[in-house]
Amino acid sequence: MARVTVWNEFLHEKRNDEVKAIYPDGIHAVIAGFLRGAGHEVGTATLEMPEHGLTAEVLEQTDVLIWWGHMAHDKVDDAVVNRVRDRVLEGMGLIVLHSGHASKIFQALMGTDTWNLRWYHSDTYERVWVVDKSHRIAQGLDDCFVIPQDEVYGEHFGIPEPEHLVFITWFPGGEVFRSGCCFHRGAGKIFYFQPGHETFPIYHQSEVQTVIKNAVDWARPASINKVTYTTGNVTLMEEDA
Amino acid sequence: MARVTVWNEFLHEKRNDEVKAIYPDGIHAVIAGFLRGAGHEVGTATLEMPEHGLTAEVLEQTDVLIWWGHMAHDKVDDAVVNRVRDRVLEGMGLIVLHSGHASKIFQALMGTDTWNLRWYHSDTYERVWVVDKSHRIAQGLDDCFVIPQDEVYGEHFGIPEPEHLVFITWFPGGEVFRSGCCFHRGAGKIFYFQPGHETFPIYHQSEVQTVIKNAVDWARPASINKVTYTTGNVTLMEEDA
Amino acid sequence: MARVTVWNEFLHEKRNDEVKAIYPDGIHAVIAGFLRGAGHEVGTATLEMPEHGLTAEVLEQTDVLIWWGHMAHDKVDDAVVNRVRDRVLEGMGLIVLHSGHASKIFQALMGTDTWNLRWYHSDTYERVWVVDKSHRIAQGLDDCFVIPQDEVYGEHFGIPEPEHLVFITWFPGGEVFRSGCCFHRGAGKIFYFQPGHETFPIYHQSEVQTVIKNAVDWARPASINKVTYTTGNVTLMEEDA
Amino acid sequence: MARVTVWNEFLHEKRNDEVKAIYPDGIHAVIAGFLRGAGHEVGTATLEMPEHGLTAEVLEQTDVLIWWGHMAHDKVDDAVVNRVRDRVLEGMGLIVLHSGHASKIFQALMGTDTWNLRWYHSDTYERVWVVDKSHRIAQGLDDCFVIPQDEVYGEHFGIPEPEHLVFITWFPGGEVFRSGCCFHRGAGKIFYFQPGHETFPIYHQSEVQTVIKNAVDWARPASINKVTYTTGNVTLMEEDA
Repeated sequence: MARVTVWNEFLHEKRNDEVKAIYPDGIHAVIAGFLRGAGHEVGTATLEMPEHGLTAEVLEQTDVLIWWGHMAHDKVDDAVVNRVRDRVLEGMGLIVLHSGHASKIFQALMGTDTWNLRWYHSDTYERVWVVDKSHRIAQGLDDCFVIPQDEVYGEHFGIPEPEHLVFITWFPGGEVFRSGCCFHRGAGKIFYFQPGHETFPIYHQSEVQTVIKNAVDWARPASINKVTYTTGNVTLMEEDA
Repeated sequence: MARVTVWNEFLHEKRNDEVKAIYPDGIHAVIAGFLRGAGHEVGTATLEMPEHGLTAEVLEQTDVLIWWGHMAHDKVDDAVVNRVRDRVLEGMGLIVLHSGHASKIFQALMGTDTWNLRWYHSDTYERVWVVDKSHRIAQGLDDCFVIPQDEVYGEHFGIPEPEHLVFITWFPGGEVFRSGCCFHRGAGKIFYFQPGHETFPIYHQSEVQTVIKNAVDWARPASINKVTYTTGNVTLMEEDA
Repeated sequence: MARVTVWNEFLHEKRNDEVKAIYPDGIHAVIAGFLRGAGHEVGTATLEMPEHGLTAEVLEQTDVLIWWGHMAHDKVDDAVVNRVRDRVLEGMGLIVLHSGHASKIFQALMGTDTWNLRWYHSDTYERVWVVDKSHRIAQGLDDCFVIPQDEVYGEHFGIPEPEHLVFITWFPGGEVFRSGCCFHRGAGKIFYFQPGHETFPIYHQSEVQTVIKNAVDWARPASINKVTYTTGNVTLMEEDA
Repeated sequence: MARVTVWNEFLHEKRNDEVKAIYPDGIHAVIAGFLRGAGHEVGTATLEMPEHGLTAEVLEQTDVLIWWGHMAHDKVDDAVVNRVRDRVLEGMGLIVLHSGHASKIFQALMGTDTWNLRWYHSDTYERVWVVDKSHRIAQGLDDCFVIPQDEVYGEHFGIPEPEHLVFITWFPGGEVFRSGCCFHRGAGKIFYFQPGHETFPIYHQSEVQTVIKNAVDWARPASINKVTYTTGNVTLMEEDA
């Protein structure tokens, strides 16, 4: 059991009837639902809450933070971004979904222009290939799975080389995309997962839920304790030096 | 200028008229030709030569070895495989092309079942995406390029996770493939490149030649000297220890 | 709970009284003991058993194999080495201890001259630094810990660059050593851990036992099922291709 | 020949007679000197110049930027940091020296708390071990070399796991440090090198100059052209999709 906070921008669902029909209570509600079903203790937070719902207290009690944002990345307060970053370095896992690739927090942790990729609207399918079935995040999946409809994301994707590449997505339009990418920053594990355009019921799909549930298990800290080291101006280790 | 040896199994070209029409003097002759054009000092070697043309003398004088094999991997003598492996560990670069993925030497260096991948014969095109245009091997290439006809290779590919992934190939049939993969073993650099079925004129194509020429520049040792370390039973470093 | 097999050469303990005094029933008995104490189901196997105790049946029932060998690496049958290798690629974890760096199985999986390092006999201490305290294998450890007496191993160590480096050992004689190294080969996880000379009671030490217990948890496969992919000559994925 | 800009904070040399005696014209002057001697076209820039000497024009003409800073990291303007970051992503190499580990630019590119490490003042020696002699940055070096006097830096060092680890430093006081670390961000290569406390003549030492000269050759972009990709809202690749 991990303590998960699902953060969602939660604007499309209020403003766009098509999205509202798919996610009446928000994308976060659907994700929180299946994670609760998997036995996790799950809270949610959204952009328009005070401090975007990500107070120091909330983050302190969060093992894994899930991030979905799209149209309002620039509305996220820098102080909150820094707080999330510091908590990741301390050991909190972070799962960045779909358009969250362009979020301030993902850019800050990667150090690159992660907003940078090819994209176009589409109503066609995509095929997600599992490059490493032995990885914790791929448990229970087949060699590949199809998402019936999604936006297209194509390379080049402006990330540092992933430490482990778990998925590559194939699009009928000719694109490929490194769609499941693992990183470490400080004591925190970070996973980026590409599928999830808001106008399609992607987070209702079984394989996608499997990936996110697995990613929570992978990204949660190995210990409940924060990782700290004795650093700064220390005295020497060896008395006989 | 590097000293390159192009090794080719050289059986298809003798036995199959279709292949012979494309490579009348063998795949190795075409590759050697454009590498000489790039200023390299190039020799060739083939399976049916004594010691497969890879004597200790030849390897000693080789900075980068290129390997193309397909139907006769098991005919390659283990002693020669070991000799090549030792020379790679010493610093010789190795470029493994297409069906060379199943060669004894590539398996020995990777430590995995590199013969393991999806494949089927096809006469359709493939699109090679450049995942990292800043890499030495991708110089002069566009975001992606098309190879008009090739065999299909699809994931899962039984390699260790590449240290750098330079290319991903997209196939119209629904597959993706990690098609340009960099590794180090000992002091040697290793590059695997997927395109190159013998029944199509792939090594005559400009972009493919660019990749192989770049790969030679990348894989050649940084120094003409072999890399050696003082190892074994040594005395301690510090007199005051 | 994982199913662990502890393999030990078990020669020093029979031939050398000093070693026998520390490990009267063999190094494997001590390691098996504390792993059983951690709740694992543990078997042991030694060089002089038929098939070195590593029959197909034993390996089939092993989630994590631990390997200690030193003076008789060349006595290990190649057929057994291949069997272990295949089982690692299928998902079995492998933990290689101390002089096991020069074992056939570690060399086969790494693809390099892993026997190659500096060493000398010593009765002095070493300091093991934890480079990544967030790693599963470092749970419960401090910033560093001291092993009172051990043989000295120094760089250069002939391994491929580790995927994750967890420990670096410092020796008073002036050496450093990458002493806790993580790799993947196929579906299997591999961990190398340097401390453990047979003439000192190193596997009786609490921190060393913590590392090995953690490493079992890290190296065990994510699923009880073997990892397999549909590969070989397949038909194309897309009917409309 | 690369176009190099050596950036130095240049405060210690003006305020501290001990430092001034070693670097009368500044650390940058010494580094620029030996790089010019190696055939590079070298400019210098310092904190107190307008825009810290790192105008858009200067960066545009820089292939590799070298960074030395210590006591005034917080005086570096964020706009300049962002400009340097963008230029690195575009392909400019960056070499971060010694206390530059705590600079804004290194933190921004790494995404972690790179200021975080053990340290203490010392006048004792350190031993720099070459973990990978085949690396471009290690050319011409022996298995290890000694720096007679330096400040002590010890693990844990708050960096992401290096893509390649070239050096590990051993200190007589019991510390180890990952002292030569390679990273990529965007199209730019980044190298961190630990030795270099301002009160000792470290940049006058032959081996240190060799490392920095090699690092310039490694970090310079493979092509004079900036690396760009077609990204953003594109049309699909395949007309028949």
